[in-house]
Amino acid sequence: MINVGIVGGTGYTGAELIRILAGHSEVKISAITSRGMTGTPVAEYYPHLRGLVDLQFTDPADQHFPDCDIVFFATPNGTAMKLVPGLLDRGLRIIDLAADFRLKDAEQWRRYYDMPHECPQLLAEAVYGLPEINRTQIKTARLVANPGCYPTAVSLGFLPLLAHNAVDPGSLIADAKSGISGAGRQANAANLFGEVAEDFCAYGVSGHRHLPEIRQTLQIASGGSADLVFVPHRVPMVRGIHATLYARLVDSKLDVQALFEDYYRNEIFVDVLPAGSHPSTGSVRGANYCRLAVHVPQHSGTVVVLAVEDNLVKGAAGQAVQNMNIMFDMEESLGLQQAAIWP
Amino acid sequence: MINVGIVGGTGYTGAELIRILAGHSEVKISAITSRGMTGTPVAEYYPHLRGLVDLQFTDPADQHFPDCDIVFFATPNGTAMKLVPGLLDRGLRIIDLAADFRLKDAEQWRRYYDMPHECPQLLAEAVYGLPEINRTQIKTARLVANPGCYPTAVSLGFLPLLAHNAVDPGSLIADAKSGISGAGRQANAANLFGEVAEDFCAYGVSGHRHLPEIRQTLQIASGGSADLVFVPHRVPMVRGIHATLYARLVDSKLDVQALFEDYYRNEIFVDVLPAGSHPSTGSVRGANYCRLAVHVPQHSGTVVVLAVEDNLVKGAAGQAVQNMNIMFDMEESLGLQQAAIWP
Amino acid sequence: MINVGIVGGTGYTGAELIRILAGHSEVKISAITSRGMTGTPVAEYYPHLRGLVDLQFTDPADQHFPDCDIVFFATPNGTAMKLVPGLLDRGLRIIDLAADFRLKDAEQWRRYYDMPHECPQLLAEAVYGLPEINRTQIKTARLVANPGCYPTAVSLGFLPLLAHNAVDPGSLIADAKSGISGAGRQANAANLFGEVAEDFCAYGVSGHRHLPEIRQTLQIASGGSADLVFVPHRVPMVRGIHATLYARLVDSKLDVQALFEDYYRNEIFVDVLPAGSHPSTGSVRGANYCRLAVHVPQHSGTVVVLAVEDNLVKGAAGQAVQNMNIMFDMEESLGLQQAAIWP
Amino acid sequence: MINVGIVGGTGYTGAELIRILAGHSEVKISAITSRGMTGTPVAEYYPHLRGLVDLQFTDPADQHFPDCDIVFFATPNGTAMKLVPGLLDRGLRIIDLAADFRLKDAEQWRRYYDMPHECPQLLAEAVYGLPEINRTQIKTARLVANPGCYPTAVSLGFLPLLAHNAVDPGSLIADAKSGISGAGRQANAANLFGEVAEDFCAYGVSGHRHLPEIRQTLQIASGGSADLVFVPHRVPMVRGIHATLYARLVDSKLDVQALFEDYYRNEIFVDVLPAGSHPSTGSVRGANYCRLAVHVPQHSGTVVVLAVEDNLVKGAAGQAVQNMNIMFDMEESLGLQQAAIWP
Repeated sequence: MINVGIVGGTGYTGAELIRILAGHSEVKISAITSRGMTGTPVAEYYPHLRGLVDLQFTDPADQHFPDCDIVFFATPNGTAMKLVPGLLDRGLRIIDLAADFRLKDAEQWRRYYDMPHECPQLLAEAVYGLPEINRTQIKTARLVANPGCYPTAVSLGFLPLLAHNAVDPGSLIADAKSGISGAGRQANAANLFGEVAEDFCAYGVSGHRHLPEIRQTLQIASGGSADLVFVPHRVPMVRGIHATLYARLVDSKLDVQALFEDYYRNEIFVDVLPAGSHPSTGSVRGANYCRLAVHVPQHSGTVVVLAVEDNLVKGAAGQAVQNMNIMFDMEESLGLQQAAIWP
Repeated sequence: MINVGIVGGTGYTGAELIRILAGHSEVKISAITSRGMTGTPVAEYYPHLRGLVDLQFTDPADQHFPDCDIVFFATPNGTAMKLVPGLLDRGLRIIDLAADFRLKDAEQWRRYYDMPHECPQLLAEAVYGLPEINRTQIKTARLVANPGCYPTAVSLGFLPLLAHNAVDPGSLIADAKSGISGAGRQANAANLFGEVAEDFCAYGVSGHRHLPEIRQTLQIASGGSADLVFVPHRVPMVRGIHATLYARLVDSKLDVQALFEDYYRNEIFVDVLPAGSHPSTGSVRGANYCRLAVHVPQHSGTVVVLAVEDNLVKGAAGQAVQNMNIMFDMEESLGLQQAAIWP
Repeated sequence: MINVGIVGGTGYTGAELIRILAGHSEVKISAITSRGMTGTPVAEYYPHLRGLVDLQFTDPADQHFPDCDIVFFATPNGTAMKLVPGLLDRGLRIIDLAADFRLKDAEQWRRYYDMPHECPQLLAEAVYGLPEINRTQIKTARLVANPGCYPTAVSLGFLPLLAHNAVDPGSLIADAKSGISGAGRQANAANLFGEVAEDFCAYGVSGHRHLPEIRQTLQIASGGSADLVFVPHRVPMVRGIHATLYARLVDSKLDVQALFEDYYRNEIFVDVLPAGSHPSTGSVRGANYCRLAVHVPQHSGTVVVLAVEDNLVKGAAGQAVQNMNIMFDMEESLGLQQAAIWP
Repeated sequence: MINVGIVGGTGYTGAELIRILAGHSEVKISAITSRGMTGTPVAEYYPHLRGLVDLQFTDPADQHFPDCDIVFFATPNGTAMKLVPGLLDRGLRIIDLAADFRLKDAEQWRRYYDMPHECPQLLAEAVYGLPEINRTQIKTARLVANPGCYPTAVSLGFLPLLAHNAVDPGSLIADAKSGISGAGRQANAANLFGEVAEDFCAYGVSGHRHLPEIRQTLQIASGGSADLVFVPHRVPMVRGIHATLYARLVDSKLDVQALFEDYYRNEIFVDVLPAGSHPSTGSVRGANYCRLAVHVPQHSGTVVVLAVEDNLVKGAAGQAVQNMNIMFDMEESLGLQQAAIWP
């Protein structure tokens, strides 16, 4: 049994993490902190957890997670970097679901997140928690930087192509669409139901925060340069990311279906659909799968990859639990094998 | 381990039943039939079940469920009554999720479902599968009639009041609202996204099929007469029922909160919220709970009960699995303790 | 041509008022104020108005509406009561879309709106702007209190019954459902898309602010006492109110269909549907109609009225323009005859 | 006053055409046909048109539109081509909102629409009704082929770039997203609310019917070859198309903002937003505008055009009315200047 602490349990990512951990047979949640809700029972704040979680939120200032094996951060960007060094010193292992430890370059972090990094010395040690590429390092990591939601879908979709040098790394386009829960739970007029429902738009075309994170992963995969045009869009739904990826094939005759099936043959949570498929976000709602389909339409020489995930699960809390399972030598799928909720 | 057969696996109720049973540790699904999809892998038809269900749909005409302990019917009304007698003869136990065995009065069935009943001799034996009132009979039943979605929410909301003669049984009003999945999966222009989204309306005010079923339960509960005005409405969402119930209190000083808490003290899947609460359908999405709150607004002498459930879970497939657990002496909550998916 | 000023143009009600007035052939909008957006072009703030509105928001502190004939308040509750006396003194006529002048009783206002009323001396003069009952007084009014969204639908549904003493005035129940735009545009976590979508709940069962306003209208209509149980609910859609109204008939043989058709025979914006109908909110989206249907289900002695409106149009901005048309002796439907947008 | 006939009034496009024409000051609708609904009042079938349309549906077999000046076809593909020759012979002018006369190449039509063309002799004469490129020919046309919804948005977005040879015509990608009303009103399980809500997916990646139509327009615009990868997606909303367009700039220093503003300077219904904008489909809901924004993100050499329209208005019925206005020498915007409905 692993004892788990959670810093920041009131956002969507925190709520999802609690939901998943509450159903994990080898986990005991010992503490969930929240500055604003200290003293309130978690199940009063989140009625969907009534009967399943018995804790009250505690004050993060008082909370040192004395009997925990691992602490998850489900906090806004910039919080974990303040607290992680102290917790590591106490021997705790950490999975940060925010962006604090995802970029290797502190200067780039400062530029995209508008604040200086407070423990740049940990960036080299932090392991980027995408199990499909870093499983071995995750096993022994003290500090895992859980990937962003867009980066997970976009990276998993491009990886087989880049790893095999199958596409021109200067031709990458990621047209990505996300449900609104990806924007978090802050009260913000732009995210009101009245503004989001029956509406669709792009945003951040000039440069989204997830761009350097994706670029970093793709460059490692390609073993050299890789750049992309990344255009995120907001979909009037709560959960789900659909990434539509485009790249110029080096060899337009390549069997891309076989390439993808081979690459992910042993991955339990990456599911390559049969040729001709169109994965839907509904097929992964609440589940930890990333489903992929790959097309080369109209002999165009352009490969089109369709990748879907639940941004709160494989794009956040589910992947974090997958990383925890790896770190503690448990079955990688433990607590994560529920079917998607459909319809 | 129990071997389970499912007749009619392609509708929403069938899909939900498969999802729940696929995660049930003591169940093996042996066969799923579908006339239209015979030969198609279940996980090809339902991509959200990829990796979790390995069967193909089989032809119900060929399917005698030789090694099954129990067969579920998730078929349109009027199908089970043709096949159930033969299956019972072979020693199988049955849970019917359709309406075929819910009404004790065959003549009323004919009137509300527009067809004569084909095995009225079984109506007396069939046990109405609302565990909160019929748990003992369910244990030994050969044939369980799983309640309708509206009747579950409305009955659970009125039961404590009627059982204690706390309200005038001639004053009952049930203003009920359901997500569109309650209408099933038949292609019907009225259920298209374009007609349902951003729209809200009542329907069937002159007399909905669930009315006699609810009335039958309430009359048993009240030990005499009970009638109600029942107005169902369609909500632009997929899952969830919210029943708002009104009745005149006999004694306007009655502590209704205590009454409800006492009545459901030992029920794991009926959750009485603290006084002043407003349960939301989102708090039970994908979960087997019915959550209730009770109010007496403005000293009006009228009690208002708010009851929510997921129409596909506690209102259908989840309750069916709860009944199965009871029938086979398993923990009643086995396979049903997942938290609701929120947001 | 009438010159119009608008105080508070950045909320949903203000935006809708601008949309309707921009298409009104006899209106020129002279000024739109906003404290937060002073100096910003209205069409930059509201891209859906590009090409149709040429003004910038002005500071309400500097704005005395010198060449206006009428000023609309589309402000939060409690703003108009501070400014209206000064504007009336300058000879302007006023329509307030907020609640400031709806209740005749200043003490009740204080209780329900949590602040003392700042010009109680105007409450007697203010005309409640429901044209179907107060058309004559509206014609000459200096100050019109535009009704709330729920009160419009609930009142129009009960009026024919109360005016004819056809129901027991102690038996009234209003089970009302509203799209989320009724909650306004303030950034509030409870109104985020992630909280509202795929969710349905009641709220304010212990006493909603619209209750005394409705009660006041119904009591006048019944010529005596009238009370009601009022339970509002939140629907996962943007626009639309559906009120389901219940009352005990005095004479269960009464021809309620004829009663309603007679009562509203000359009303252009109240549309009584044929017997057996179920009006949908989609049929009035963006239009100024209230559509009604009336049922007496199952010989129950209970009449059920179904009333729909667009909360932002007949429930707010459209009704305000209807009132303006009456005040300035224009065709009552001018600028208001657009069909609903469907689907 | 123009007399108008409509063939096929029961689909979404037909309903929208009736809505717009009912508010057009110079139009009288003389007849609306429907095979299935002959004899039914239009306003009974479509309650949102109550009070605004007084006709009954008539049988198309009996209907020769004797006093009409123009006939609109809002029928499934393949219907207009059967009837248009006879109507032209009787001197009627025609606007076909279906695909029958959009492609110049009858063989390509057969391939993409799975049936032989029945009057290929008219394909050369038919004018493609995109006013922004064919205004002069539309004025005098007997037969106008109203563009498809995707082709309108994609073409308007690429035209300025191709007309100025500003991009590599072999590098075009159109990642397009449409609300579900674009799929029409046929009862089809794939379009049920339960399947569409909270779901997002691509479809038709291997080759959508709108591809040859778009290609035909782009090739004319580029004065030579032009090809594109076209990936349509389904958005869980009713109305709206968002096309995200990608192309490689020939000169990465080109001022694309100025190029677009110049190109559309005199177009009333194409609205180029300021640099840095992200148009949303909500800003054109119910309105005849196509709003565009143009970006060159991260000095990538790739231009990104964002184009939105209401698929039922500028993408169908509104554009048809715009064409009618041109054909009959009326103000091009007559009946089309309503603001979008927001929120």
